[in-house]
Amino acid sequence: MIDPGPVFLPKGFRFSALKAGIKASGKSDLALILAEPRTTAAALFTRNLIVAAPVEVGRASLAKSSGRVQAVIVNSGNANCATGQKGIRDCRRVCAETARGLNIHPAEVFPSSTGIIGVPLPVEKITSQLKLLTSSAGASTDHLWQFAEAILTTDSKPKLASVPLQSGGGAVTGIAKGSGMIHPQLATMLVYLVTDVVATPAELNTSLRRACDDSFNLISIDGDTSTNDTVLLLASGANGIRLQSVRKEFDRALLEVCRSLAKQIVADGEGVQHVIRLRIEQAKNRAEALQIARAISHSLLVKTAWAGADPNWGRILAAVGRSGIPVHPNKISIYIGDQMVCRGAVACSFDKNAAHEELSKPECRIKVRMGRGKASLEFLTTDLSAEYVRVNAEYST
Amino acid sequence: MIDPGPVFLPKGFRFSALKAGIKASGKSDLALILAEPRTTAAALFTRNLIVAAPVEVGRASLAKSSGRVQAVIVNSGNANCATGQKGIRDCRRVCAETARGLNIHPAEVFPSSTGIIGVPLPVEKITSQLKLLTSSAGASTDHLWQFAEAILTTDSKPKLASVPLQSGGGAVTGIAKGSGMIHPQLATMLVYLVTDVVATPAELNTSLRRACDDSFNLISIDGDTSTNDTVLLLASGANGIRLQSVRKEFDRALLEVCRSLAKQIVADGEGVQHVIRLRIEQAKNRAEALQIARAISHSLLVKTAWAGADPNWGRILAAVGRSGIPVHPNKISIYIGDQMVCRGAVACSFDKNAAHEELSKPECRIKVRMGRGKASLEFLTTDLSAEYVRVNAEYST
Repeated sequence: MIDPGPVFLPKGFRFSALKAGIKASGKSDLALILAEPRTTAAALFTRNLIVAAPVEVGRASLAKSSGRVQAVIVNSGNANCATGQKGIRDCRRVCAETARGLNIHPAEVFPSSTGIIGVPLPVEKITSQLKLLTSSAGASTDHLWQFAEAILTTDSKPKLASVPLQSGGGAVTGIAKGSGMIHPQLATMLVYLVTDVVATPAELNTSLRRACDDSFNLISIDGDTSTNDTVLLLASGANGIRLQSVRKEFDRALLEVCRSLAKQIVADGEGVQHVIRLRIEQAKNRAEALQIARAISHSLLVKTAWAGADPNWGRILAAVGRSGIPVHPNKISIYIGDQMVCRGAVACSFDKNAAHEELSKPECRIKVRMGRGKASLEFLTTDLSAEYVRVNAEYST
Repeated sequence: MIDPGPVFLPKGFRFSALKAGIKASGKSDLALILAEPRTTAAALFTRNLIVAAPVEVGRASLAKSSGRVQAVIVNSGNANCATGQKGIRDCRRVCAETARGLNIHPAEVFPSSTGIIGVPLPVEKITSQLKLLTSSAGASTDHLWQFAEAILTTDSKPKLASVPLQSGGGAVTGIAKGSGMIHPQLATMLVYLVTDVVATPAELNTSLRRACDDSFNLISIDGDTSTNDTVLLLASGANGIRLQSVRKEFDRALLEVCRSLAKQIVADGEGVQHVIRLRIEQAKNRAEALQIARAISHSLLVKTAWAGADPNWGRILAAVGRSGIPVHPNKISIYIGDQMVCRGAVACSFDKNAAHEELSKPECRIKVRMGRGKASLEFLTTDLSAEYVRVNAEYST
């Protein structure tokens, strides 16, 4: 569906992956990023109050190392979540063993896990492979793709995006996993962003928050926020360009990479037939627009209508009505594609076949005008198909 | 699934129903309750800000008549919603014509509509049948069942519940429609409760609010609150017993009727395989317990796991974690049936087959203990099946 385009490798990073036997499928499930000593980092984590061990450990390590990261160790096939104090100890041991092999401080190893929850992490399977994993790291695009493959769970394909920086020849490159739509099986959204600019952790943090707000925070998660969600941005400094001197270009590149990955996540959702570009216009402010977009895109009735390519705008209108925003019905208009289908909360006469055709596309456009102000945003969401239910009803049984 | 048991007919009411040709299926779709002149009323309406014409008209009429109702006119097959000012005029005309035939004030006619939205109400089809509808009204249980049939849309069966009052020989009887789980196709939950006690509208209102809080407000609606939801309580006064003198017994009977109807609505949901009795215990207060129950029962991941009778408690835990309540993970326990499956947010060892068996029952029990306080409640919800998606994806196309 989405072509990641050419892949640019920021300097200062090596990648590695192998099969450690954690996944029942026997596919690759252990992955590593090695970064140069001066590498700085910023991370955003899930807002769920139930968090997996690697989220707790990763957050603490970043604080301890003052935003320095030299290695990222990721396993798929096990989320190390709801594993209690033992889970924390297991995660720390993986970090310590990785650090020992590299002769760095354990707080400079950033851990991630994704997969089934409530099952103890198979620590031996991981630690016994660390030597091989470290020694086989390389800086080719092949290595990068292998890393991207090894972090997947229910995803159907790896997710990469890459944008070169004109000034100085660096790049921003991102790798993501997540099966979109919502967070299926709590399979976790993990995103690793690497760049070779020179930046402090605080500068990275500012850029990362801004980019995530306009990408990963604008995709439809049904509220089933994962316990493991992590977005990590690493800057090696290897191209010698200061982020501050190319801030505008850097932020634009970072946003482009994040948006591409966000869209790849949505499009790869289980059972997804249609990606919906939902535009909210004339809201009072951005928070209000987001609340309306979420009310619409979390409605089962709206999502199932989209699955049938059904121009049933009444369900969208009703979702707006119970969004919690004090809407004025007679100011609300709804568009499917370029056609207005509802004006002032009343039916318009419109071409139903054309509307059905728009909704039958792999990517469809829907617009809701609130008549309350000047804020607008675009939210990416999906339909809800019977296939989705089948996949998720058959998970662990 | 549910036997309404013997039906008691409160004195002072007659019922009627017929086929007016509004439903494409040709089934009965116009229904009437005739009540004695002194009948008092209280009503609760949808909290959606987009409301159908009959909700606006009904609310205004109750205010104008100071809580007096002598007739309830209901059509199915058309919701008269998103029909603008014309919808209001159409609804008023139906009320006025009904009133003229009965020689009563139009404000004493309470209207309801349920069915497709955005389509003008076929007023002539209704008004041309009013004479026949009025003249065929009767006070037998047959008449009551015919009324219950005529207000259905996607429901698979009529919903009745009835409890006799020991003191004075009266009764509380309720008729409901709604296809549970959520409000499918915005098909509206309509509930009519009739009793023969003597009560002021204010007294009825107090009792009705209390009963609804403990019944219809404790069933899983996915937030897709309908534009037409209405619960109406009528008291004919025909048994001469003052509500105030039997308040405790009356409130208990009313709650029992409402709870039975609520459960019938949930159990009749589209594609529902399992009704879930979700118990939240040790919450700080009732509002908090309700917020947690709703977070769990609106989670697609939880609902699809239930569809597969999958004892995947991690999804329940994650839903609690993003409920918005400041939970302490190490105090949370989860039970499936009588088995503890998670203690302090960590996996317990438990009999997976027994848990799968419990979740395979038509009615299953799940309990979440918060360790925060003493409030508890029981919430009725359902699984989400592929059949549900099919039904709702095929609605209007």
